[in-house]
Parts: sequence; C-alpha cells; structure tokens
Amino acid sequence: MQLTKQTLNQHTDQVYDVLVVGGGAAGLSAGIYLQRYLLSTLIIDKGKARSHWMQELHNYLGLPADTPGRDVLKQGKAHYLSLDGDYLNGYVEDVIDEGETFAVHVRIGRTNPTYAVFRSRYLIAASGIIDHLPKLADMQNVFEYAGHNLHVCLICDGYEMRDKRAGVFGNSESSLEVAFPLGWFTPHITLFTNGEFEVSPAFRDRLQTHGYQLVEQPIKQFIGENHQMSGVELADGSIIELDAGLVSMGSKYHADYLKQIDLEYQSGNLITDKMNRTSHPRIFAVGDLKVGMNQVVIAAADGALAATQIWRDIRRAEGTRRSPTSSIAA
Amino acid sequence: MQLTKQTLNQHTDQVYDVLVVGGGAAGLSAGIYLQRYLLSTLIIDKGKARSHWMQELHNYLGLPADTPGRDVLKQGKAHYLSLDGDYLNGYVEDVIDEGETFAVHVRIGRTNPTYAVFRSRYLIAASGIIDHLPKLADMQNVFEYAGHNLHVCLICDGYEMRDKRAGVFGNSESSLEVAFPLGWFTPHITLFTNGEFEVSPAFRDRLQTHGYQLVEQPIKQFIGENHQMSGVELADGSIIELDAGLVSMGSKYHADYLKQIDLEYQSGNLITDKMNRTSHPRIFAVGDLKVGMNQVVIAAADGALAATQIWRDIRRAEGTRRSPTSSIAA
Repeated sequence: MQLTKQTLNQHTDQVYDVLVVGGGAAGLSAGIYLQRYLLSTLIIDKGKARSHWMQELHNYLGLPADTPGRDVLKQGKAHYLSLDGDYLNGYVEDVIDEGETFAVHVRIGRTNPTYAVFRSRYLIAASGIIDHLPKLADMQNVFEYAGHNLHVCLICDGYEMRDKRAGVFGNSESSLEVAFPLGWFTPHITLFTNGEFEVSPAFRDRLQTHGYQLVEQPIKQFIGENHQMSGVELADGSIIELDAGLVSMGSKYHADYLKQIDLEYQSGNLITDKMNRTSHPRIFAVGDLKVGMNQVVIAAADGALAATQIWRDIRRAEGTRRSPTSSIAA
Repeated sequence: MQLTKQTLNQHTDQVYDVLVVGGGAAGLSAGIYLQRYLLSTLIIDKGKARSHWMQELHNYLGLPADTPGRDVLKQGKAHYLSLDGDYLNGYVEDVIDEGETFAVHVRIGRTNPTYAVFRSRYLIAASGIIDHLPKLADMQNVFEYAGHNLHVCLICDGYEMRDKRAGVFGNSESSLEVAFPLGWFTPHITLFTNGEFEVSPAFRDRLQTHGYQLVEQPIKQFIGENHQMSGVELADGSIIELDAGLVSMGSKYHADYLKQIDLEYQSGNLITDKMNRTSHPRIFAVGDLKVGMNQVVIAAADGALAATQIWRDIRRAEGTRRSPTSSIAA
C-alpha cells in the first residue's frame, strides 16, 4: 500500500525482507518480482526518476515507440501496489548495517519533514543517476527542451539525430568525446564549451579532421518553441541553428545514503556480479547506479535478477514456505 | 519489410550487418536496437516463440499483468518493421562461417518449400527453447491447459500457485526436484511420474518429510474446462483434483543450425559474456538459449546488450557514418 505520514508508524516496527531505494524502472521491476516471491517489500522513492523525464521511450519491447517514460513508471507502480507492496514517497538519508538487518533513515516531506527508520534484511540500491545539464542563467530555458530534442543518451537517441544538425554540450574536453560516436549518425556536429573550459590543440585537430565545428563562447539561451530546440543564442547575440542536441556533462549519482557502508565502485557506479549483488552480500544494485548500460529495459531486467537472487538466498536459508504477510519482528 | 517467397531474391545478394535467428522477445528487442543503430538486420522466425504460448505476462514492467505474450511479440514486430528491419518467416537449417560473413541456409514454407541462402557479418542466436510436455495419448488434451494453469516456469508462476493444490509433472527423479522450491508457495503438492520412471527410497523419504504425495500410475488425461485444468484422471479411472500444475520435463534447444560451428555450451545453453557474445567473436546468444534466467524482460534486455556490442564492434572497425540503407555487396 501507499504509506503516508499518518500510517508510517504501523510499518516501522516490522522488518521488511527487502527495502528498495528508488521507484524507477529498476526498483519497480524488482518490487514486482519480490512481491510475487512472497517477500515483503518497501519501495522508497524521492520522485523524478531519470525515465520520468523521457518524453518517448523509443526502444522498449512491447510498448509503442512514443510511450512516455512516466507512463511506464505509473503502470509499474500500480502493478506493484496491486501485489500488496508497500511504497513511500521519501528521501533515504542514511543506511546503517546492523548485521542481520539494515536501519534505513528516511526523511518524509519537504516542508515540516517527518523522520522515520525502517528495517530490512536486504537492500536494493535502485536510486539511479540524474544527468548534469548546461548551467545557464535561466535554467527553465534548459528544462524546456531537455528530454525532448535536447537528449542526454547517445545510445537511446542517436537514431533521432541522424543526418540532423546536432549540438554537443560538454563540460570538459573528455566529455566532448561523445561527438565521435555521434558521428555515426550525423556528420553535422557543432561542439559547445559554453566558455567554461579550454580545448587542446590535438583535440582541435581531430575536430577539423572530422569537419566538426567548435563554439567556445558562453551560451545565452536555447531558442525554439513547443519543447523543440531550434538553436543556441550566444553571448554576443549570434545564433547557431540546430535540429537537436546531446548533453554530455556526466551525472549525479544518488548513492549518498550508502556512504557508511564499504562498497566497491567503478567511476561512481556500483560493481555487481551477474545477479546484481554488490560487494556486500545483502546489498544489490540495479539500473543506472550499477556498472553497465543505462537503458530502461536493462534496468527492468536488473530488478528481476536481483529479486530472484534474494529469493534464492532467503529460500535456501529458511527452506519452508512463509505466508505473504509474514515478517520478523524487529 | 516482411519478405515473401516472391521478394526473396532481392535480398539474397546483399550482406546484412546482422542476421537474427528467432523473432521472440530477445530477437525482436535486438532488431529494434540494431535498426536504431542504422545496422541492416534480417530476423528469420520459424513462429511459435515460447512467449507466444504465455496467456498472461504477470511480471513485465510497463504492461498490465494480464497482457498475453503474443501481444508483446505483435507490438515488437510492428515496432521493428516500422524501423525498416527485414523479417522472414522461415526455418534456419544451417549456418556456415565463411570468415568475414556467415552463409545462413533457410527453408521457407512447409509444403513445396523454397530454399535460400542469406549472408550477414554477425549472427544473433535468439531461437530459444520450447518446453517438453507430458506425453499423453491425446496431446490436444495437454495443449488445452498448457500456458493457462498448467505452468512451465516456477519463477514466473509460483505466485499463481500459492496455497493451491499443485501437481508437478516430471520425466525423471531429478526433474521432480522443483517440487521443493515450489513448496515455498504452497504445501499442497502432488508429484506425478506418469509411470515412466522409478523413484529412489531416499527421494520418497524426502517427499514424506515435506508431506508431498507421489502418484506413479500412468495419466490418462487432464480434466477441466475453459483452459482451466482441475485435475488428472489416472489409468485406473481414479481422479486427483488439482488447482494448478507445473511441468518440469526439460526443454528442446533450438540450436541445431549451429552444429557446424564450435561454440561453448553449458547444459545445452550457450555460454556468453556480459554483452552476450558467445565464444565465437561474431556470434551472440540472447534469451532462453543462453545461460541465465528465462524471463521475457531479461530476453528483451539481452537483445539490447548484444545489439549495442555489435554496433560498437562495427563502429570501431569502420569509424565513420554509414547511411541506413548501405550494405556491402557479397
């Protein structure tokens, strides 16, 4: 069920089999599988999963190519709740490993927040990442186009940019490297530094070889209408016309709550085995937070794998059937 | 486009980037990703993918829990064709590794078949498995209930059998082992040998400990109506009432066409790396044919992974953009 500030206390004295941090594609898929394994599950979601911002999922098997990401999340949440999973809108601040259980510290609500501690035997980190976007004076101008034709994922949207005039927006020379694989889809590429960093002579030579343009002036704003970006206005008032954009500025990793636990990372991503277990035997990581490709269908599969391994662990330890509502008192 | 006997010859003189054997969840997802990477793709499907038989997909994120498997395949095929992928109904008989390309020998049509050879640089084996079913005198009686409440997958449908009277149908003592994890979901379990094999005293002891029944008489037929199996009639006319069944008789692996190629297997499944590449650098395996869990959402993710790795291979080898219709003459 959906937990509220009013019903919190009915759930803080139980130990969930699994607490899932994050209600995006990976977390919801894990929750659906876990509940179908008769494991008691609590998903805690802060809102605004990365896929929530995707206007159209072009490559998810079984759904029309214009399905908004938020529709998948809405359907997935309803599916999970129909299986009697618990769901809470909240922000996980900290996780303490107590040996047999985790104590998960949560802040609920933005104004006059409530604080609560939930306990679980296993933890699934499904809290994902969010893309850094160009920092302009008016961020609303950026949000107007991000997720529409200002893309953040080459693998997802390279096809959408084929033969178009594409802008690449980076925050370092290495972040601009994405221009070269983007060249698979279109030769019409302009790179933007927003005046924030220098580009080496060697890199300039490579751009010239490929016939790509480099713009080093600060960006005043994106221009366009109806969420379709049609170009960039620079600080000096000049305009570069574009048909699409690709932001390549890295990501914020939503994993601060794991800071007290010793886990293995690779460039910010959690390292997992093939069933998505991290270096901690009772912590799994799924979706964009783990090493691997950031795709909705892969996140959904990640959730299935992690849930299944946790079921195997618990089943092998307990052997016998448990009723769906059972839980161990804290 | 959908190829036909009449249009075959227009396609046998080109070299596809990728030929996908099998148009189930894994093959279609691979095809969607490949076409979006501007790689020319041909899917050859013999029909009747395993998921085609699933009456309800209960655990696929983004789709209602009563979605038939065939709806996912239908949507996936339309999606793939909308991206200009080629699709042929046919049976792949043999694959010859020619070094740079594969020659794929295909039989098209059942009566008066046509034979054709297609060529591709990469091959994705997505031809899956199909479950062995109990061999009764009247197989139509088995098909009546298979995929409805006569299940073939504990992970998918254990939840559907919770607290129900469940029959387990095996073809060896070891195949009946599935009864013990099924015990997680229900204590009311009856095992059937159909009179085909002996059960050891040690196994009988384990069944007794768990309170499971063992029926060793041959089965005359399943009984029920409207695709809902309600029990089993034995050879002597007695009836065992059931609410659901789980068939555990192993699977046929659709991989005969790979017999001339040296590949690494594990218990019939192809061994792959994390991007689903087999021990052959230009052959990938996805879905139920590879080592791993047999789930639709995992098959779909498999397709995305294999397609992406093939794109990386080809992109790194060629460097530059190619138009979507390009292909290398044979």
